[in-house]
Amino acid sequence: MSMDTLLYWVGMAAVAVYALTGVLDSARKRMDLIGALLVAVATALGGGTVRDLLLDRQVFWVVDQTYLMAALSTGILAFILVRHRRLPASLFLIPDAIGLALFTIVGTQVALQWHTPWLTASLMGVITGVVGGVLRDILCNDVPSVFLKGELYATAAWLGALSLIALQALGMAPVEATWVAMGVVLLLRLLALRFKLTLPALG
Amino acid sequence: MSMDTLLYWVGMAAVAVYALTGVLDSARKRMDLIGALLVAVATALGGGTVRDLLLDRQVFWVVDQTYLMAALSTGILAFILVRHRRLPASLFLIPDAIGLALFTIVGTQVALQWHTPWLTASLMGVITGVVGGVLRDILCNDVPSVFLKGELYATAAWLGALSLIALQALGMAPVEATWVAMGVVLLLRLLALRFKLTLPALG
Amino acid sequence: MSMDTLLYWVGMAAVAVYALTGVLDSARKRMDLIGALLVAVATALGGGTVRDLLLDRQVFWVVDQTYLMAALSTGILAFILVRHRRLPASLFLIPDAIGLALFTIVGTQVALQWHTPWLTASLMGVITGVVGGVLRDILCNDVPSVFLKGELYATAAWLGALSLIALQALGMAPVEATWVAMGVVLLLRLLALRFKLTLPALG
Repeated sequence: MSMDTLLYWVGMAAVAVYALTGVLDSARKRMDLIGALLVAVATALGGGTVRDLLLDRQVFWVVDQTYLMAALSTGILAFILVRHRRLPASLFLIPDAIGLALFTIVGTQVALQWHTPWLTASLMGVITGVVGGVLRDILCNDVPSVFLKGELYATAAWLGALSLIALQALGMAPVEATWVAMGVVLLLRLLALRFKLTLPALG
Repeated sequence: MSMDTLLYWVGMAAVAVYALTGVLDSARKRMDLIGALLVAVATALGGGTVRDLLLDRQVFWVVDQTYLMAALSTGILAFILVRHRRLPASLFLIPDAIGLALFTIVGTQVALQWHTPWLTASLMGVITGVVGGVLRDILCNDVPSVFLKGELYATAAWLGALSLIALQALGMAPVEATWVAMGVVLLLRLLALRFKLTLPALG
Repeated sequence: MSMDTLLYWVGMAAVAVYALTGVLDSARKRMDLIGALLVAVATALGGGTVRDLLLDRQVFWVVDQTYLMAALSTGILAFILVRHRRLPASLFLIPDAIGLALFTIVGTQVALQWHTPWLTASLMGVITGVVGGVLRDILCNDVPSVFLKGELYATAAWLGALSLIALQALGMAPVEATWVAMGVVLLLRLLALRFKLTLPALG
């Protein structure tokens, strides 16, 4: 599988899972269908949009309408599902962790292909991974959970982005390094949730 | 009247009414003159700014200083008015509905002229229409009202944008379609406010 | 000293003091190391980023990684400091005033060099100066203090930006006008804090 094909499908999957989390989260705030869909679209497309604006690339979903359609259709399906069946709140955390892993590594890889230096590229990965969730939280008027003392959210993303860069610098093929780095983010995040791992905090 | 002239003056009117709503809204939060003016400017220019950044166009008010002057002078006038006379809170809803109608249709038309595909163009219209109000609410630390279960806010905008696209696809002249579509948004929003029309909501 | 050298070093100093304020502020919200660092980076780089996007320039810290390194290393140092020693909350106000003065004047000067008209250039200065702090407050879920009835925050920035433009129009050398205008912002802000100077407010 070529790198471009891999990034395309991983990006599409990430859009879908983040759109799902947007709807799940907006259910707590009594939003109507269109409100929930807008939160879903902002969550799904926000991180990649900020990355593309910062890198001075054309915004990915403006160039290719398919991403927007994926976000909207996942959002509508999720809305129907949530209205008919009360889902446990903790369900939210699994697709959110998957989306974080996929978006962070796609974002880092895109920045590297755009020839940004490594530290900036790793931050672009973190931005792609976390901005969607930050927008979701701001639109629902919560303190963005990524910033709170918590279970290695941005930390998992950053370590995964750095491992992607390190593995490729050490000679691993880009496609394989992408899979490994996505695994690193997902594993770190799920282990942190399971065992309540945290970083030192202020206050 | 040419399309460009129409879009110019409708855009200018939209900037003025949204600047007015920014000041009316900030009155609830004990802001000073400059704070209220900054909220007015963000409300008036925010939606079109995000649209232009996403479309990779030059930002409309950076190219033409007149928009900024219109936002500032309306803001100052509104500030003086509000300080001297307590206005009923519901007054706020009329200029807000007018601004929504004008900005949504201008935003959609600009995106169509920029050759974006129809679904993306309709979302650009919604973004142009609602982002100003979202910024206003975030800056005042409220849950953005556009996302709450409410009276067809983003819904009215989206239906208007889609009707603009449909009418032109069916052969109506662009200038006429623009007037009709602005009427659609305004009428839907005012009817929804009057008769408490809502969409199905979560939770 | 050339103008470019001056803007470079003043910009770097502004990044460092704003990163410091981001960490000091996030201490009130029980954030962990990475959360505090992300708030520090957003505070330090946010204003200049929005200015560059609006002006359609390349984003300053994407072009030159040194700014990002300065923000991160200051953030880490501040985090260690804050964890080991409880600092008085009022300490926060001094670096914040310095950062406001530096960023506002650098931002205005950059916009003038980019040939934006004077009113827009002065607003770009205000944006460069205050957006970082607004992001810091939004990420911590406060009403952005810049908008509240307060001690001449955005007002000091705007008057300083206008004085920079006026002094150069009157024939003062750009480097000297830069120093004088930074002094204007800092002095106005500190005097306002000391003597509780405020503008007329609504409500």
